[in-house]
Amino acid sequence: MNDIQAYMQETGRKARAAARVLAAATTAQKNTALEAVADILDASRETLAEENRKDLEAGREKGLSDALLDRLELTPARIDTMIEGLRQIAALPDPIGEIFDLKYRPSGIQVGRMRVPLGVVGIIYESRPNVTADAAALCLKSGNATVLRGGSEAFHSNQAIAAAIREGLEKAGLPGDSVQVVQTTDRAAVGAMITMPEYIDVIIPRGGKGLIERISREARVPVIKHLDGICHVYVDDEADPQKAFDVALNAKTQRYGTCNTMETLLVNGTVAEDFLPRLAGALWEKGVELRGCERTRAILGEKCLPATEEDWDTEYLAPILSIRVVEDIDQAMEHIERHSSRHTDAIVTENYTKARRFLREVDSSSVMVNASTRFADGFEYGLGAEIGISTDKFHARGPVGLEGLTSVKFIVLGDGQVRQ
Amino acid sequence: MNDIQAYMQETGRKARAAARVLAAATTAQKNTALEAVADILDASRETLAEENRKDLEAGREKGLSDALLDRLELTPARIDTMIEGLRQIAALPDPIGEIFDLKYRPSGIQVGRMRVPLGVVGIIYESRPNVTADAAALCLKSGNATVLRGGSEAFHSNQAIAAAIREGLEKAGLPGDSVQVVQTTDRAAVGAMITMPEYIDVIIPRGGKGLIERISREARVPVIKHLDGICHVYVDDEADPQKAFDVALNAKTQRYGTCNTMETLLVNGTVAEDFLPRLAGALWEKGVELRGCERTRAILGEKCLPATEEDWDTEYLAPILSIRVVEDIDQAMEHIERHSSRHTDAIVTENYTKARRFLREVDSSSVMVNASTRFADGFEYGLGAEIGISTDKFHARGPVGLEGLTSVKFIVLGDGQVRQ
Repeated sequence: MNDIQAYMQETGRKARAAARVLAAATTAQKNTALEAVADILDASRETLAEENRKDLEAGREKGLSDALLDRLELTPARIDTMIEGLRQIAALPDPIGEIFDLKYRPSGIQVGRMRVPLGVVGIIYESRPNVTADAAALCLKSGNATVLRGGSEAFHSNQAIAAAIREGLEKAGLPGDSVQVVQTTDRAAVGAMITMPEYIDVIIPRGGKGLIERISREARVPVIKHLDGICHVYVDDEADPQKAFDVALNAKTQRYGTCNTMETLLVNGTVAEDFLPRLAGALWEKGVELRGCERTRAILGEKCLPATEEDWDTEYLAPILSIRVVEDIDQAMEHIERHSSRHTDAIVTENYTKARRFLREVDSSSVMVNASTRFADGFEYGLGAEIGISTDKFHARGPVGLEGLTSVKFIVLGDGQVRQ
Repeated sequence: MNDIQAYMQETGRKARAAARVLAAATTAQKNTALEAVADILDASRETLAEENRKDLEAGREKGLSDALLDRLELTPARIDTMIEGLRQIAALPDPIGEIFDLKYRPSGIQVGRMRVPLGVVGIIYESRPNVTADAAALCLKSGNATVLRGGSEAFHSNQAIAAAIREGLEKAGLPGDSVQVVQTTDRAAVGAMITMPEYIDVIIPRGGKGLIERISREARVPVIKHLDGICHVYVDDEADPQKAFDVALNAKTQRYGTCNTMETLLVNGTVAEDFLPRLAGALWEKGVELRGCERTRAILGEKCLPATEEDWDTEYLAPILSIRVVEDIDQAMEHIERHSSRHTDAIVTENYTKARRFLREVDSSSVMVNASTRFADGFEYGLGAEIGISTDKFHARGPVGLEGLTSVKFIVLGDGQVRQ
């Protein structure tokens, strides 16, 4: 066993020990810790800025792109948001210990379920250092210990945040090891983290598709993963034209780089000639490039570029939209079945039966009627916060809040009952 | 790619196609299919007996043990149970399409969750052919396609049951490929099944610990697994002596070979001298061998054999019980933390605070107060049926009924809302 593996095993062992204490921690202790971390971060703004400067300088020397340097920077506003986030998570209801479905059985026992932490959560993420505080806070509130492995370019920033978290935890009488930020930039640490089922119960990777695919392939523990967001809006022939216009425009242009942004618009052939020119005008005005099928181009003309087969499977994350005219809801759902990444898909229709069919038959983590795909988000859904969006069906699906970081056990209350 | 791999890929492809149809199938269609299969099995008793005889003869020639031959046999009573099981599953409420937590958000959208099938479930099991019908029925009711791989010794029996299932499915207008029983005894089929995430969404192994450990190690899809059942009963100093006697005796002796049978009894030192002799007498009368710690033996004498360290970690599945005298609830919970397989653990106490602590702090799939561990069972819990008991924390924990075979998606109902 080499040094990194030994170090990670030791980190895992400490996390497991801390997890036992956290599972029994009171709501007050966890909230006190979160408030303490917020206060300490607030008082450490200078240190944070200083450590962040080291990362930014090293990043500039290494020739990181401006976009990456921007994500790396801990501006005062971002520190504010980080602190505010901690306080918001302290204010959320504690999911742990919740008892539900407690029912009497014919045998006389009362059977119910109690929400419990998962144990130890491993988070592997890339450049943004604010993830350190966000992810640690969500895991702490849900009674889990955390092992965080951030990007090497944010090393100093992450360590500074980690020190504040440790101090806050200890102030609240919780183990400092409840949140550990890996203190090495060696890539072998990731390999070790994802293959220690005895110490880590679940891995949540936050980063590009390449990172997530590699981790999923090699992990020996469950992974809550979020791959592409190729989202669709289908405008039905019975859609209200104004709702269709509003939803389609918002789903594409409210933000371009997010996973719940629409990438492909499907329009029923009966209404395409009425609907498309007005929408295309608004999109072009905002600088969105349109790529259409033949029928779309017959309506919109040459300014709409031809869509290739590849376009239907592309997450642009950019001001580009592919458009296809379809016969009916069946063809729309077939297209979605084939090309959707099963993140979020929406129908716009006034027809009750088609709305019900779409909701039931489209197999995506969020399925919507007459609403913008941009709503697929933990805050908008009322989860209070979000550690990621799962495109898996196992365990957690869609936006993952505190509940996705928990498990449930059965509890049985009796009066001496025995089985016959 | 060799022949077996190609065959399994083709099986997986067919299962995936069937799963799409099943996901949209109505409750009536699924129930009609289950009833039809029950009727066909009822009408095929002779064929079933004949095919089962082939397996039994081959088994005898291969020198299978009497216990294995017994498990392999499809007696008329077992066929009755299998048919009755199908009808019971038809009578259960359909979990698919259930909508819950549908709430309005400040943005005006209404967000809820809908229960959906997992997709394709792979079941790998050993000798008992009745698993073929039970597992297929649970998966079908929950809208999943199934690929079943039974033990080679039950090959003919399983194929006969598979033929009846296919006939019933087709009679109800559902794809015959909804339930496929692998038509080869080649072990490579298992290796292929557990490494096809594109076609199989979850694997449920049913069999010995060796099988389950091997599958978990090599699987590239999620596994709902059930390892040991090392269950404890802790008799507190504030236990009602009669309840403690009843629960301990029942937990050990109601059945010896089940995973929810107590394997270790922990007794508070204050009451051990009063409690143990009477219980030991009753257990010895039933032929149970006792293995105790030093304090236990000081009370029970030489007839109680000495327990070794290994005993605390052994699932006997036999009339053997290990007994340890402990100081208090903390030492009892420490013992459980170290030695329990996290299946089912119980406390017997009249003390409110200790009951609450035990429920909260013991990290097992079922935690009980004043009830026999033997209640840890899908039927006793009111799940209607059980496809297995999960000792994992991810996705499903404890007895797994129809709900454990489902996922949920978010649904959003709007009136044209867009995100600000």
